[in-house]
Amino acid sequence: MDEHREFDAREFRSALGAFATGVTVVTAAAPDGSRTGVTANSFNSVSLDPPMILWSLARNSRSLAIFERAAYWSVHILAADQDHLSNHFAKSGTDKFAGLEIETGIGGVPLLKHYATRLQCKTAFMYEGGDHVIFVGEVISFDRRDVAPLVFHGGKYALAARKTEPAVLSGNSPRDSDISFGEDFLGYLLWRAAQHFQSRVIVHLQQHGLNPESFMVLAMLLHRDVRSPGELASGLPQPGATNIDVLLDTLSARGFLTLANGQAGNEVRLSQSGRDATLLIHAASQAIEADLLGRMEPGEALALKHLIRRFIVQTDTGLPHPWQSATSSQEQE
Amino acid sequence: MDEHREFDAREFRSALGAFATGVTVVTAAAPDGSRTGVTANSFNSVSLDPPMILWSLARNSRSLAIFERAAYWSVHILAADQDHLSNHFAKSGTDKFAGLEIETGIGGVPLLKHYATRLQCKTAFMYEGGDHVIFVGEVISFDRRDVAPLVFHGGKYALAARKTEPAVLSGNSPRDSDISFGEDFLGYLLWRAAQHFQSRVIVHLQQHGLNPESFMVLAMLLHRDVRSPGELASGLPQPGATNIDVLLDTLSARGFLTLANGQAGNEVRLSQSGRDATLLIHAASQAIEADLLGRMEPGEALALKHLIRRFIVQTDTGLPHPWQSATSSQEQE
Repeated sequence: MDEHREFDAREFRSALGAFATGVTVVTAAAPDGSRTGVTANSFNSVSLDPPMILWSLARNSRSLAIFERAAYWSVHILAADQDHLSNHFAKSGTDKFAGLEIETGIGGVPLLKHYATRLQCKTAFMYEGGDHVIFVGEVISFDRRDVAPLVFHGGKYALAARKTEPAVLSGNSPRDSDISFGEDFLGYLLWRAAQHFQSRVIVHLQQHGLNPESFMVLAMLLHRDVRSPGELASGLPQPGATNIDVLLDTLSARGFLTLANGQAGNEVRLSQSGRDATLLIHAASQAIEADLLGRMEPGEALALKHLIRRFIVQTDTGLPHPWQSATSSQEQE
Repeated sequence: MDEHREFDAREFRSALGAFATGVTVVTAAAPDGSRTGVTANSFNSVSLDPPMILWSLARNSRSLAIFERAAYWSVHILAADQDHLSNHFAKSGTDKFAGLEIETGIGGVPLLKHYATRLQCKTAFMYEGGDHVIFVGEVISFDRRDVAPLVFHGGKYALAARKTEPAVLSGNSPRDSDISFGEDFLGYLLWRAAQHFQSRVIVHLQQHGLNPESFMVLAMLLHRDVRSPGELASGLPQPGATNIDVLLDTLSARGFLTLANGQAGNEVRLSQSGRDATLLIHAASQAIEADLLGRMEPGEALALKHLIRRFIVQTDTGLPHPWQSATSSQEQE
């Protein structure tokens, strides 16, 4: 191997990290009953007939002796919410199975009860692979669940978001004019997605004669009762755009809240009918969320929420959060 | 192999599909100069010292003969926008490199010019792997680009969306009350993300004395000039909520558009100053999008747009698209 180069290990690792993988936990029991489990992302499928998969384990791993002696081992492909399990089995420890729900598989192998796919394997080959040993296993039995997968990329956990063709949302081509706001424009996408949600919530608001701003005031009061008009106003997205006194008077006249003079000025309280209406709308909104997200695949729904949250954090404009602003005001008192 | 089971091939494949992978194109040239490239997601890293990676190729692949004779081959880990290249090399064809920009690598191996990571390798081992041959290569040289990866999961292309801890957007715990709209509530997330965008666009609207609805009317006219008031009204998100005549009169009085009696009734046209203002706001909005998306990683930004688009398609409520509704009206004429 005359061309053998000494790479910078960090550079090489990060180059390899460009290849996204799932995450697995591989478990085994040795003939003497000692058992172990390791986190591995070096898994891949090999053969369909006979059914075979492979993964590799560092020669300096404490678990190597058990895997070399074990005739059977099991691979658990982890689901999107199992990063804690990945972290758990990546650490070295005395008994990695303490406190975990375990089943016993073929050859006495400890099996985890939660996974995306579980493959019970028999060692077919052990191959040399530099500082690792490549284990090729014949799959004896497998179990599968339809859940979103955990992804590993660039040294970090990720979610898989199905890649779609640029969907043509309307009948028009998204690029039919370079001066139009194309359907690929983020401002349009966010606005329209929010509209899809709001248009369904608004139906419920209208049943109680409420508009979004007045409902937001009621929701703030449901979260913590007794607030000042100024505090409620500052929780609205455009605090200056609303005449809070008019809004509160209207809600009061319709029996949703009460206005009274307290020690620190005017105090706004939710009435029983205001509470009931807010709770009903709240329940309806939760059902709408479940319905809308249920139309996507579980992994997509999870990834969508994660990414919007990332976007919000990364682009924070100092917009008041209705509940936070209330708490902050309280702290300032 | 007494436990050998005959699995349903489709079931087994879909169980293995739970493991997300990247996608690679592996290329090689045989001593006689014949060259080939195949799409493989069976890639994985093996060893750091010496640097080794592996992948496997079906025994019945037409390309096997070339890879068996080639001393060198190269792995291209594909970027998020390279699914066409994955599809291209997954098909069998006479010259897979026709029309592609190619470089020549170590051992005369054809190299692709675009990739996330490119690894030039020398065959270290060829191992038996059932109906596949496992190729283990020592990495001689590598190149890396900081781009989002293409992901493959469940038989489909995907994007990797960095997994984040449920971010606490405000100072409050997202679950501090089971009756509050938590910060994990999709309706809130979409609304807030849209606000982050809109609050920056609104600044530009205000410079021209416009509100979102009046700007939407101008943008519709920019897209296709000369429309009827009814057509413009039907393009608004809540067609009934706006008095279109008042809105058009106001815009006309301020010189943004002209109203005239045409053959089919009133015709609305954009004025030059209306066109100028709309184009300026359009340019500012594009800059805002670039700024906001630039705060996320490239792969995240891509995945965010894809997922919102998926959400919109999956949850379509029949909300009119401002440009589509215009076209539809035209078609109905």
